[in-house]
Amino acid sequence: MAGTPVTVIGMGMMGRALATAFMNAGHPTTIFNRTPGKAAALVEAGASEAPTAVAAVAAAPLVIICVRDYDAVRELLAPAEAVLSGRVLVNLTSGASDEARATAAWAAEHGAEYLDGAIMMTPPGIGAPETVILYGGSPSLYETHEKTLAVLGGGTTLISSDVGLPSLYDVALLGIMWATFNGFMHAAALMGTEKVAATDFLPMATDWLKGVASFLTAYAHQIDEDSYAAEDATLETQVPPVRHLIHESRIRGIDATMAEYTEKLLTEAISRGHALDSYARIIDHFRASVA
Amino acid sequence: MAGTPVTVIGMGMMGRALATAFMNAGHPTTIFNRTPGKAAALVEAGASEAPTAVAAVAAAPLVIICVRDYDAVRELLAPAEAVLSGRVLVNLTSGASDEARATAAWAAEHGAEYLDGAIMMTPPGIGAPETVILYGGSPSLYETHEKTLAVLGGGTTLISSDVGLPSLYDVALLGIMWATFNGFMHAAALMGTEKVAATDFLPMATDWLKGVASFLTAYAHQIDEDSYAAEDATLETQVPPVRHLIHESRIRGIDATMAEYTEKLLTEAISRGHALDSYARIIDHFRASVA
Repeated sequence: MAGTPVTVIGMGMMGRALATAFMNAGHPTTIFNRTPGKAAALVEAGASEAPTAVAAVAAAPLVIICVRDYDAVRELLAPAEAVLSGRVLVNLTSGASDEARATAAWAAEHGAEYLDGAIMMTPPGIGAPETVILYGGSPSLYETHEKTLAVLGGGTTLISSDVGLPSLYDVALLGIMWATFNGFMHAAALMGTEKVAATDFLPMATDWLKGVASFLTAYAHQIDEDSYAAEDATLETQVPPVRHLIHESRIRGIDATMAEYTEKLLTEAISRGHALDSYARIIDHFRASVA
Repeated sequence: MAGTPVTVIGMGMMGRALATAFMNAGHPTTIFNRTPGKAAALVEAGASEAPTAVAAVAAAPLVIICVRDYDAVRELLAPAEAVLSGRVLVNLTSGASDEARATAAWAAEHGAEYLDGAIMMTPPGIGAPETVILYGGSPSLYETHEKTLAVLGGGTTLISSDVGLPSLYDVALLGIMWATFNGFMHAAALMGTEKVAATDFLPMATDWLKGVASFLTAYAHQIDEDSYAAEDATLETQVPPVRHLIHESRIRGIDATMAEYTEKLLTEAISRGHALDSYARIIDHFRASVA
């Protein structure tokens, strides 16, 4: 039995992975890319390549789009505005929350329902049970299409009725990823100066990250309770080691920007009278301009 | 049967935890602090408080010191130089690798053997089976005292015959910790502007960190092989999302320094011709000044 027909717009690495997952699950799949011929393998495997955006949107009630950015979404779909009415547009393009909200408003103007999603995985993981895709939009709309969307990843979840939130979760999580990656690159370069291989340092670093994650659990509670009693290490005791990190980096000619930033966050919080608080107190710095 | 007598110098939170662990394991324990009376509870529990540094060092063949910094180590022990000969000095003070090497040389001048250690745990974890303490120094010296030292943590390990390496591991790992903490604080502040509690965001962040750790495994191999084929996401594809993170931060009045730094690392690597490489290519930035 065939599943719901779907259209996938955008045939980059991610778009091709999405279309492949739908086809593997038995959904009749129409594909479209601004520059045609990017997905010959999919067409050979049975996908229909639409000649125009209008034909692509008209081909299925559920239209998934995953392109470079939200400007590309609007440019690609502009010629198809007239056929959007009554369809469900699922936007998996990476973007910002304000862009997602604006795109939902534009879709509503043209009579389309809208879900915004953030794919928390690289293309090779599409379709896997552990792959997380976060959605924002109407809960009833999401429920109607949940089973079809879950084909793309077992961790498909509605996180909010606000279509802007998946984008914010996306960049917030990516920010943690880049911060950790940069910390690891800095550390691996330091160890490299003493001929310690990155793969030799790795097991210690990944074990260490488990401990770091457990501290985050304590810190999240402290942040929500706005109460920062140090049960582990005070801000004050972290100043000498961060200065050692700066020193070790400089004598080896390694960029110490991140450590200098940490030193600044620590000394700033200490100068505000928080010397004996836990590291969770650093949230104040990020909240400061908002308050 | 009583264990080896030990002396613990420095009665900060960490020194008190070290002395407590030795006493719990049945080691006759002498304690010393520059300012006396900091460890009344330990004395009540049976520790001998030495009146001077000379008396403290003379009281045991194994002398553990854990104070604020290496300058404090040298100041505290200077009056006891004459009684150091034939003893083993175990320095668990946080410091830099060059300081550790200088302290080992100084100890050797005075006829003492020397191990340098880095405690990868906060004081409440001292004595626990999972607590990691990294040592550098002579393997035979380490083996002689391994059983006694393991009282302080089950993860007690000799990582190098170089007394400078524990300090470098220490700050390298702490750098990863601070980077991850800072990334989490930034993320929690972003989510907070949309009334998402840190504890609600937490499970997604900690699951996400497990995925981040698995990427590090791939990246460590790429770093050692100096070969950066992107099996996941290319550097090029990470520029738009990091700009979204900067945008989301700025419109919310949140410090975007870390994201701007990531953008700089990405664009720098791309301008050097590495657009299609994986994130592991960023190691070049940290190696650059060294090469």
